[in-house]
Amino acid sequence: MRDFDALFDAQLDALRAEGNYRWFAELERRVGAFPAAAHHGQGGRDVTIWCSNDYLGMGHHPAVIDAMCETARAAGAGAGGTRNISGTSRFHAELEAELADLHGKEAALLFTSGYVSNWASLSVLGARLPNAVILSDALNHASMIEGIRHSRAEKRIWAHNDPRDLEEKLAALPEGATPIVAFESVYSMDGDVAPIAEILDVCEAHGALSYLDEVHAVGMYGPRGGGVAEREGLMGRVTLIEGTLGKAFGVMGGYVAGSASLVDFVRSFASGFIFTTALPPACAAAATASVRHLKASRFERMGQKRAVARLRDALDAAGIPHMPNPSHIVPVPVGDPVKCKMISDTLLAEHGIYVQPINHPTVPKGTERLRFTPGPSHTEADTAKLVSALSALWSRCALARQVA
Amino acid sequence: MRDFDALFDAQLDALRAEGNYRWFAELERRVGAFPAAAHHGQGGRDVTIWCSNDYLGMGHHPAVIDAMCETARAAGAGAGGTRNISGTSRFHAELEAELADLHGKEAALLFTSGYVSNWASLSVLGARLPNAVILSDALNHASMIEGIRHSRAEKRIWAHNDPRDLEEKLAALPEGATPIVAFESVYSMDGDVAPIAEILDVCEAHGALSYLDEVHAVGMYGPRGGGVAEREGLMGRVTLIEGTLGKAFGVMGGYVAGSASLVDFVRSFASGFIFTTALPPACAAAATASVRHLKASRFERMGQKRAVARLRDALDAAGIPHMPNPSHIVPVPVGDPVKCKMISDTLLAEHGIYVQPINHPTVPKGTERLRFTPGPSHTEADTAKLVSALSALWSRCALARQVA
Ligand SMILES: Cc1ncc(COP(=O)(O)O)c(C=O)c1O
Ligand SMILES: Cc1ncc(COP(=O)(O)O)c(C=O)c1O
Repeated sequence: MRDFDALFDAQLDALRAEGNYRWFAELERRVGAFPAAAHHGQGGRDVTIWCSNDYLGMGHHPAVIDAMCETARAAGAGAGGTRNISGTSRFHAELEAELADLHGKEAALLFTSGYVSNWASLSVLGARLPNAVILSDALNHASMIEGIRHSRAEKRIWAHNDPRDLEEKLAALPEGATPIVAFESVYSMDGDVAPIAEILDVCEAHGALSYLDEVHAVGMYGPRGGGVAEREGLMGRVTLIEGTLGKAFGVMGGYVAGSASLVDFVRSFASGFIFTTALPPACAAAATASVRHLKASRFERMGQKRAVARLRDALDAAGIPHMPNPSHIVPVPVGDPVKCKMISDTLLAEHGIYVQPINHPTVPKGTERLRFTPGPSHTEADTAKLVSALSALWSRCALARQVA
Repeated sequence: MRDFDALFDAQLDALRAEGNYRWFAELERRVGAFPAAAHHGQGGRDVTIWCSNDYLGMGHHPAVIDAMCETARAAGAGAGGTRNISGTSRFHAELEAELADLHGKEAALLFTSGYVSNWASLSVLGARLPNAVILSDALNHASMIEGIRHSRAEKRIWAHNDPRDLEEKLAALPEGATPIVAFESVYSMDGDVAPIAEILDVCEAHGALSYLDEVHAVGMYGPRGGGVAEREGLMGRVTLIEGTLGKAFGVMGGYVAGSASLVDFVRSFASGFIFTTALPPACAAAATASVRHLKASRFERMGQKRAVARLRDALDAAGIPHMPNPSHIVPVPVGDPVKCKMISDTLLAEHGIYVQPINHPTVPKGTERLRFTPGPSHTEADTAKLVSALSALWSRCALARQVA
């Protein structure tokens, strides 16, 4: 027998040597206690989570949990089949209608995750549209990059959030190309927001299909939580809006929304949609409850905004640098994988504060950071405790302060 | 604006013209009533499902539903993050330990689906093992094919279930290649079973990594439901075993099991594992309950075997052809997409029997079929009703009978 383990270990050792090996924190969130959670590695003691993507705490909302449990008790734990072979239920259909309505589109299509929705949709659009060329923002998420790669369509990378560079690249395309412009609204690691209107202007001028990932924006922005495009009145101009049910909506799953023909096309041809067991009806029902709640309630979004402002103010007061952006994501740059992990470890061990170090491959090497996601359930006391702990560490590690 | 819808519609029309356009049946399964379910398209009246992949009805088992609901009430609806960034809980860790134990392996790794587990694992193995060549059974599932394609590794297709052809292809590889042999145990559309021992002999003789998809076998075969490799005492010889939590285990999710190094390697490098929200703790807990139950109980597997034998006997008595195989899948060949859909539609409309037509791209054109999956909850009366309805249709459509 060949020693495969040796091959695996060699690559794992290289990862360890560069400080990018990952340990997963084993947490047990408790309904009602969030952002506190029991941390297995800390002997089960409570820590405060500062890096969850359950941005609004909807995963712990009673309406969401009730929908999940009631549907599981009524319809069972799983879907029991792919969407085509016995796996479609009323709960899937209702959620798709709810999502189409959220984005003001004719139709929406569910996937098992946001990752799969991006990967499968870009794969099929790139592979099946005649002479497709995909123009991809330089900082697009892995799921989009892999989908584009998988499609084997031609690809052009345009400078991050730069409509002028996009325009140049579109203008240089050969006659007869079918351009697909793929980008995000909120970029999750820097928290910056795309100039959607300008990008759409350029897309329309060149007859390009616009593909917008609102994964970190759905539930969070716009009067009904439709995302940044809703807030800016642009949803009708975007050809395809992609989102997740696993972040602000607090459950799991992904989707795309667009014209009836577009959605039927992806439904009919995307391998990653067709050949997989459907989401459990209980997850679909929970997501529907969450989407419905956030269409009507701005309470969570307002609490979230307050928590972000509070944290940014406290960081300023302590002179701890944080990357400016107009979103809910507060990145504190560290710039070194080993230090980043060390700070995170110390926050956990000495202060009961959990924030995962963000290292390569999630961000480029040299831009390692801590990424805070304050939510409506983080109190003033939580914030004060976090910033005083960070401040002590900043002194101890001789990290640069920033004058406000 | 370019008319993208016209591009989509043209391809959808082509699908319709060849009879392969799909409508999804909207069903509402009810706990306690399975295999009966309300069918939306039939005005909500009850139909009998004959094509579910919840093979053992575990999605409706009280222990599974209780685990889902209790965990949702305790820990919330979603994981709230990727596995690395706050999304790992005790429920994920317990399930991974349970699955490693099920397959007698050092470790196991969860994915959001069986599709993603295949795609992500084969992608990373093919892309990162030096000089990888993937040898793929000709009838492998779409999720494996896409993973292999995505890896950009060299690929060789070997004749379905043919260890001799595999041997020839392995012998022809250049010096220094790292061969990965990917295959399934139970092929879901024909229900045939791979000669695993012979394939492993060949793999071992050539130092190949063996990658076995037991998606349609886990929970179903072997004294503890470890799959065909467990039943045949071969688990220790397979390098990587892949499975799903969405079929016989009745929930959702996928996994791989293997050596600690192998699992750590996939965990550390596979994009489809890293960059996606973790399974909800409630789903993980439900799956753990299901795996545990089927390790101890053979009741469901025995009921399932009886139901298969009963259906095959009844089909024989009526002279309705069915493809022979040693598994739980009963394919009835039709060989034409339009007829196949017509039979399915008539069974539904006139007899309240739901079995989805299996057409291209799920099976090759010309091999369209009905695929029955009898389970422990299908009664003798259900079987008699199904076969008499089929028999009437066989006469009406002038389809060939078979003398037993
Ligand atoms: C921009 C972006 N798109 C898509 C995804 C994938 O969504 P999901 O977690 O639902 O798979 C993520 C993160 O996970 C993301 O950050
Ligand atoms: C052989 C095989 N592997 C993998 C999968 C995917 O598993 P899942 O449904 O959990 O995505 C399927 C079917 O869906 C399958 O038939």
